[in-house]
Amino acid sequence: MLKVGVIGYGYWGPNIARNFNAIDGVKVEVVCDKNPAALKKVKKINANINTTRDSRDITRSPEIDIVAIVTPVSTHYQLAKDALENGKHVFVEKPFTATISEAERLIDIGSKKKLQIMVDHTFIFTGAVRKIKELVEKNELGEIYYYDSTRVNLGLFQHDVNVVWDLAPHDLSVMDYVMKPKPVAITANGVDHFGRSLENIAYISVYFPNNLIAHFNVNWLSPVKIRTTLIGGAKRMLVWNDLDTDEKIKIYDKGVTVRNREGVYNLLVEYRSGDMWAPRIDHSEALRTELEYFIDCIKKEKSPINDGKAGLRIVKMLEASDKSLKQNGKMIKL
Amino acid sequence: MLKVGVIGYGYWGPNIARNFNAIDGVKVEVVCDKNPAALKKVKKINANINTTRDSRDITRSPEIDIVAIVTPVSTHYQLAKDALENGKHVFVEKPFTATISEAERLIDIGSKKKLQIMVDHTFIFTGAVRKIKELVEKNELGEIYYYDSTRVNLGLFQHDVNVVWDLAPHDLSVMDYVMKPKPVAITANGVDHFGRSLENIAYISVYFPNNLIAHFNVNWLSPVKIRTTLIGGAKRMLVWNDLDTDEKIKIYDKGVTVRNREGVYNLLVEYRSGDMWAPRIDHSEALRTELEYFIDCIKKEKSPINDGKAGLRIVKMLEASDKSLKQNGKMIKL
Amino acid sequence: MLKVGVIGYGYWGPNIARNFNAIDGVKVEVVCDKNPAALKKVKKINANINTTRDSRDITRSPEIDIVAIVTPVSTHYQLAKDALENGKHVFVEKPFTATISEAERLIDIGSKKKLQIMVDHTFIFTGAVRKIKELVEKNELGEIYYYDSTRVNLGLFQHDVNVVWDLAPHDLSVMDYVMKPKPVAITANGVDHFGRSLENIAYISVYFPNNLIAHFNVNWLSPVKIRTTLIGGAKRMLVWNDLDTDEKIKIYDKGVTVRNREGVYNLLVEYRSGDMWAPRIDHSEALRTELEYFIDCIKKEKSPINDGKAGLRIVKMLEASDKSLKQNGKMIKL
Amino acid sequence: MLKVGVIGYGYWGPNIARNFNAIDGVKVEVVCDKNPAALKKVKKINANINTTRDSRDITRSPEIDIVAIVTPVSTHYQLAKDALENGKHVFVEKPFTATISEAERLIDIGSKKKLQIMVDHTFIFTGAVRKIKELVEKNELGEIYYYDSTRVNLGLFQHDVNVVWDLAPHDLSVMDYVMKPKPVAITANGVDHFGRSLENIAYISVYFPNNLIAHFNVNWLSPVKIRTTLIGGAKRMLVWNDLDTDEKIKIYDKGVTVRNREGVYNLLVEYRSGDMWAPRIDHSEALRTELEYFIDCIKKEKSPINDGKAGLRIVKMLEASDKSLKQNGKMIKL
Repeated sequence: MLKVGVIGYGYWGPNIARNFNAIDGVKVEVVCDKNPAALKKVKKINANINTTRDSRDITRSPEIDIVAIVTPVSTHYQLAKDALENGKHVFVEKPFTATISEAERLIDIGSKKKLQIMVDHTFIFTGAVRKIKELVEKNELGEIYYYDSTRVNLGLFQHDVNVVWDLAPHDLSVMDYVMKPKPVAITANGVDHFGRSLENIAYISVYFPNNLIAHFNVNWLSPVKIRTTLIGGAKRMLVWNDLDTDEKIKIYDKGVTVRNREGVYNLLVEYRSGDMWAPRIDHSEALRTELEYFIDCIKKEKSPINDGKAGLRIVKMLEASDKSLKQNGKMIKL
Repeated sequence: MLKVGVIGYGYWGPNIARNFNAIDGVKVEVVCDKNPAALKKVKKINANINTTRDSRDITRSPEIDIVAIVTPVSTHYQLAKDALENGKHVFVEKPFTATISEAERLIDIGSKKKLQIMVDHTFIFTGAVRKIKELVEKNELGEIYYYDSTRVNLGLFQHDVNVVWDLAPHDLSVMDYVMKPKPVAITANGVDHFGRSLENIAYISVYFPNNLIAHFNVNWLSPVKIRTTLIGGAKRMLVWNDLDTDEKIKIYDKGVTVRNREGVYNLLVEYRSGDMWAPRIDHSEALRTELEYFIDCIKKEKSPINDGKAGLRIVKMLEASDKSLKQNGKMIKL
Repeated sequence: MLKVGVIGYGYWGPNIARNFNAIDGVKVEVVCDKNPAALKKVKKINANINTTRDSRDITRSPEIDIVAIVTPVSTHYQLAKDALENGKHVFVEKPFTATISEAERLIDIGSKKKLQIMVDHTFIFTGAVRKIKELVEKNELGEIYYYDSTRVNLGLFQHDVNVVWDLAPHDLSVMDYVMKPKPVAITANGVDHFGRSLENIAYISVYFPNNLIAHFNVNWLSPVKIRTTLIGGAKRMLVWNDLDTDEKIKIYDKGVTVRNREGVYNLLVEYRSGDMWAPRIDHSEALRTELEYFIDCIKKEKSPINDGKAGLRIVKMLEASDKSLKQNGKMIKL
Repeated sequence: MLKVGVIGYGYWGPNIARNFNAIDGVKVEVVCDKNPAALKKVKKINANINTTRDSRDITRSPEIDIVAIVTPVSTHYQLAKDALENGKHVFVEKPFTATISEAERLIDIGSKKKLQIMVDHTFIFTGAVRKIKELVEKNELGEIYYYDSTRVNLGLFQHDVNVVWDLAPHDLSVMDYVMKPKPVAITANGVDHFGRSLENIAYISVYFPNNLIAHFNVNWLSPVKIRTTLIGGAKRMLVWNDLDTDEKIKIYDKGVTVRNREGVYNLLVEYRSGDMWAPRIDHSEALRTELEYFIDCIKKEKSPINDGKAGLRIVKMLEASDKSLKQNGKMIKL
């Protein structure tokens, strides 16, 4: 029986606890939160789970095998460090850490202690993203030209991070997962409307080798919810609309072939516009799939795809984005 | 009777000719195009219109009062200059000119000769944009926080200009029309996938005073057509979907009030989420409205809202965008 | 403390139990199901609830105040009768009973025993339907011309009832709730494709006085899910799309005024096409609202709006529909 | 050169004239309308076309080869008869005639005189319907279970016919074209809200052998425009949304297999839910395709698919529908 301690029982924590508990051979032993009301809720749902307001009752407990950290990002490093140093595997909410150096140190400790770290990039375990990954791997889209994501809504303003750290990790982690090329530079533009020095709207461009470009539009002030990603390839193009219940992914047999001939007016462009196809998507709960995979990784002593290194790659982009924001969109090398 | 000569009879020229001809007291006298097939088409539609392959038959004809220039942007300056110097009013396709200095010189000649220049910013004569203008003027949205536009589709690659010069003038002219504050700086990121040194995807951020930001996503390589603009205000927010036949504009009684209190964890955010309202939009043909207005301006010797100066404001943003593109998103002051 | 016994713990029963239990002063005491696996599930979720496979442990228990019957319709009568005769209030799944006479007998017993009966017409407690009711009451739509509902999807084939008894009660109960006039006749057409003598597709027309008509399209064999109701009034028209998360109800300021003058060719029709308006809808869980209201009715000894009589009105339409189906759409008087 | 005379130049006549004139070897010689303003419009568009207010100048002219009748349905019979008796081929607007007997007599005359009759079932020449036909022919859908069409909007009230005769011919002709089985009976329910004895809302069910059913929802009083047809087959299901610009047809790899075993509770239902596929649709103008085909039929002396007999099949359904409407949905045998 693997025993889990969950630190943080706000919006997402209950889902982590419920899904860990539903796995055979896994048991949530104790939940920690500073808020007594949250702990009451734990007891009401499942009287067999212990509660505490002191995270050390988890990170330092000899009973606990896995620590799930579901707290604000500024606290991730200290809690994860404490857990790793006490021999626990760590599941940590995204973004992994508040700085690159924190991430690097945690990876280092985990590696030395032979403990697994998983960063909760839930989206890469959804049926939609796994299908996109599969299509890209099979080269169904051909060479990728661009990755263009929009994630906007009337969002919950975070107290401690800007909209980039709140929303972009979802999309950056999906991009990191599905695309082979690695990004080389970032620019970001954005504004804060409320005097908090925390942007509530931002536009991020990510440069790759070979003219591949990615773009992320994140906004807490949109009247409508949009969760759409376009991926354009040389052979086919794809639209992922995460709000579409039945047809989340549409693949378009569309494209352009441009032949440059002598002289600009000899440009020959051929347009191709064929069928559209919406593959069936697996609807199983992503978080459940992710946690089962984590347990499997722990048992087999293998590093998950969303390990500390993956978490670090996202944090690098977030840090670069913040630097660029502060310098009015200056390009920051990764 | 005001007599019009139309130079350029490709995709858009026939619409210009047809709509000028439909106005009482206006007659299209002659059409010029280098392509004999285009001139044949003119004759087939209306045998009473003369045709020529030499633009000087129009710009220098004593018969002609108004010259409509519907040719590639690189030719606008020379044709417009020729027309103005020969005492013709000029209607010119957007973007106005290929450079700021060209635009300034044309404005100068027009002003000295007391001739009207109209730049074909058709969109500002649509029912939808006039409604947005009206709403902003009445302060229905409150202070504007952002203007976020997406104009993407599997687009016709232009031979001589990049996607910014092709698609963004529509949106920049709408923004210029509806928003009172004037932009102060621009950044642009984009790529060319076909070795033409002409970007086919670009992302433009426009900075205004007081943290107002605008963003433009233009793309010739999208499998789907999107024509959506979000305008977020302190009081209300608006979505303009130009592809929606019946409900082009939706106004959301949604917003956020943020009160910063001592200490970051005391942040108080109030969310407001009320009704949505889609006002009835006038469906009359924008181009017809625009040309009738131009005739009216000529008769009353008044400058149109979309005059050379308006055209120049857009060209300034386009030039700045090109500069920024060449410097990886460096901020360019306007 | 009011004590509830729930009979039937399949698809919907767990929701009933969870929502009853969440109400202050109410406690689910025991759950009955024939399937031991269902009872195991009860225990796993809440170890404090007793379980039984014999419904009489509920209907005849001196502990129980309210019996919730969440079983196939063919069993409703016997279980409800047993409960009422033993002095329990009854909450029963829709449709109320399998026949008109069963419904009448239950109403009779309940009335004599001064016990409340509530039929689970959940939809009339949704924010959307309550808003429609409010609009109709305030005469915002003017005289109602028609009520046109489509409820289709790749549906779960029921073993014991046809698609009309499965899907139409939702819409018939909404219609019954929002419309003042009472229906006078019904026609229904439909087919069974699988040799079960149970229609899987049906079209029902309901006639009212004064040319008001209602129509219901129910289908278990649709590749797409549609949940749309149009209500056309003399003053305004309404579209309720229950699958639209944010704009479930749209009210159109549209209409037609027809003036008949002498001679058919003198017909004068005026079309009105104005704004559209989507009011904010309350999103609280309908079932919770419904059950709290039931508890309130029991305490105040008042009959709920969805009492046995309301249930009977729906059963009358269902019976008439079956008669019409068997006679190829013959009109059946109500 | 085949010479065409067009009778009726209201809403649709100009399209007929323009498309006939665009065909090589065909010329519109004369247009007839009772309204002088319509004839002025003819002259303005094409000064070479003669005009007349007397239809006999067309039906009896030795110059004319083809008479196009684009007038109200009550006049079709007399005009077509006159044209056929004078040796003209006839293109006639849908619905073919006002009665079955009129249609039969016209077919008879045409047959004796070896003249072609084409009824303007334009929709069967659209890319979408030709694609549906192709799919059905190739048995891609398997055995058809149902055909369910909705055609509603705030419609132009016709002076002389009800909504069934106005809107249903589109869908009945598509159904007649794509489906092999022939209908055996019809029921129709509907109402008139304006005291005209002409229904403005109607619901039509069409019965076929083997439990195939079709249904048509036609409504002049809808606040929204819907043009959707569902076709459910044993192998696949299809949705045709004629208002969707890019994905008019979607084919769903969805279905149900029902196995009846002994006893109703042993019912075994298997649900299949696979990919969706939207084939590329040809976008050429349907009317142009139709008229070119008519010219081809005339030259090759072959009967078009939408000949008088096809027109008659639709009129039979319309007449039956009217009979059923007058008898409250009584089933009328065809």
